[in-house]
Amino acid sequence: MAETERQNYQVRVAFRIGYLGTSFFGSQFQPRDRTVEGEIRQACIRAGLFTDTREGRLAFSGRTDRGVHARCQVIAFSTPYPDRARRALPGQLPPDIWVDAFCEVPDSYSPRRDVISRTYRFYFHEMPENPALMKEAAKLFLGKHDYSCFARVEPGKDPIRSITTINVHIEEDCCWIEVTAPSYLWHMVRCMAAALTRVSSGLLTLEELEVMLTGRCSNKVKPAPPDGLILWEITDQLPWRPVPPLKRTFKLHADAAADHQLMARVHRILSPGL
Amino acid sequence: MAETERQNYQVRVAFRIGYLGTSFFGSQFQPRDRTVEGEIRQACIRAGLFTDTREGRLAFSGRTDRGVHARCQVIAFSTPYPDRARRALPGQLPPDIWVDAFCEVPDSYSPRRDVISRTYRFYFHEMPENPALMKEAAKLFLGKHDYSCFARVEPGKDPIRSITTINVHIEEDCCWIEVTAPSYLWHMVRCMAAALTRVSSGLLTLEELEVMLTGRCSNKVKPAPPDGLILWEITDQLPWRPVPPLKRTFKLHADAAADHQLMARVHRILSPGL
Repeated sequence: MAETERQNYQVRVAFRIGYLGTSFFGSQFQPRDRTVEGEIRQACIRAGLFTDTREGRLAFSGRTDRGVHARCQVIAFSTPYPDRARRALPGQLPPDIWVDAFCEVPDSYSPRRDVISRTYRFYFHEMPENPALMKEAAKLFLGKHDYSCFARVEPGKDPIRSITTINVHIEEDCCWIEVTAPSYLWHMVRCMAAALTRVSSGLLTLEELEVMLTGRCSNKVKPAPPDGLILWEITDQLPWRPVPPLKRTFKLHADAAADHQLMARVHRILSPGL
Repeated sequence: MAETERQNYQVRVAFRIGYLGTSFFGSQFQPRDRTVEGEIRQACIRAGLFTDTREGRLAFSGRTDRGVHARCQVIAFSTPYPDRARRALPGQLPPDIWVDAFCEVPDSYSPRRDVISRTYRFYFHEMPENPALMKEAAKLFLGKHDYSCFARVEPGKDPIRSITTINVHIEEDCCWIEVTAPSYLWHMVRCMAAALTRVSSGLLTLEELEVMLTGRCSNKVKPAPPDGLILWEITDQLPWRPVPPLKRTFKLHADAAADHQLMARVHRILSPGL
């Protein structure tokens, strides 16, 4: 059957995508602001993959906030033209969203429900004052806890979450945490990162952190800034097929990395007394 | 005489200032856009140093374009309250302009005319492909040349300029040129930087560059981006007295350097295949 002929059945397809969060008001669709979901919808419509958003049933494995990046986010939608989707979608997306892998999935597939676990990395803006203490504090998050003090808990949501792994990585000029869990609450990883910074700076004790992890808190933790947070990995059992990256994606990152490197240097040399 | 009593005479004062060019539409006053001159005027008025701009006779040692930074720019204005100017101006300026030194000057002082030479640094976004060739090309700019091919020459301006020194500095992960001259044309250093990049990449020969320096060019050079350019030093004979830097200036640069460092890293790790 020719692809141009309208097919009567819909195929559900999944993509593993990445994006730079800087210029998005988060992943989730908003009528007036630029969002990852809004851009993907438009790209799908431009590529003729669906015309009606409801028919397309575009879904994400999870929300990311304004300014948060993704190295690996899973999306799914339904289209009569799965091959065209794989071929045409990458080129229709704006440069700050890119495709990493593709697969066809059962019609019942939901990226939110069918993903086993999500891994985030949070890159700290500054090196921790006490790395050993930060590592000790990180261990307290392991297992099942009440995250009421470390999240914006939406009404009706269970504040109990389970952290499978959490590690503090420290390199010469860089520190990050990597956290894996089946699911998270809103702002959770950024609040965890902020709490770890407070412990490392001596503003919060391990004992206080333990109490907060039972859900009892007078002061909630303020989330760390979003630009250090990356949705890093999604664990699922799909038969992903890699999609070759576009040249423009390499160029975007290489140019932006060089620009930021330059501005970091400009600020260092403009600082008084240098 | 009490300072609050209106003095009948005006004193001309000079300041050595620095600024981050990123959020300014250049140094020179524009009625609608944010400029360095506009902010300094406002700060002087807030500090009560003058009320009428004409009376203040605010002057700069030279213009910088939109996005260009200054480590050392010289400004001068007239006020009945020179002591108050030295004490109050630094705190009245926005965080992206800072004061480095102060002195009282003769009433006839003009920072444009009385400055002996100006030094710029241009930091390249990328390491040169052929550093040795770039260094050789840089030497060709030394002395007196016609910069018609390397500038936006305003009507009636002499395109002949003299470069006193030019050096290419290469460090492990960073390359810049430092140029000193009594005066420059519009876009001149950025065009010189762009030409050096073209030579280093094999897109322009030394012979072609030599011809262009006689003023004969079919294609003008496109200026390199402004964010790598810094007005670095001003040579004059004024008896400068240092003004202690404000804490917020250190903080601005430290925070921004950390943010840019982080985003450079985010881009590197988000690049496909890593």
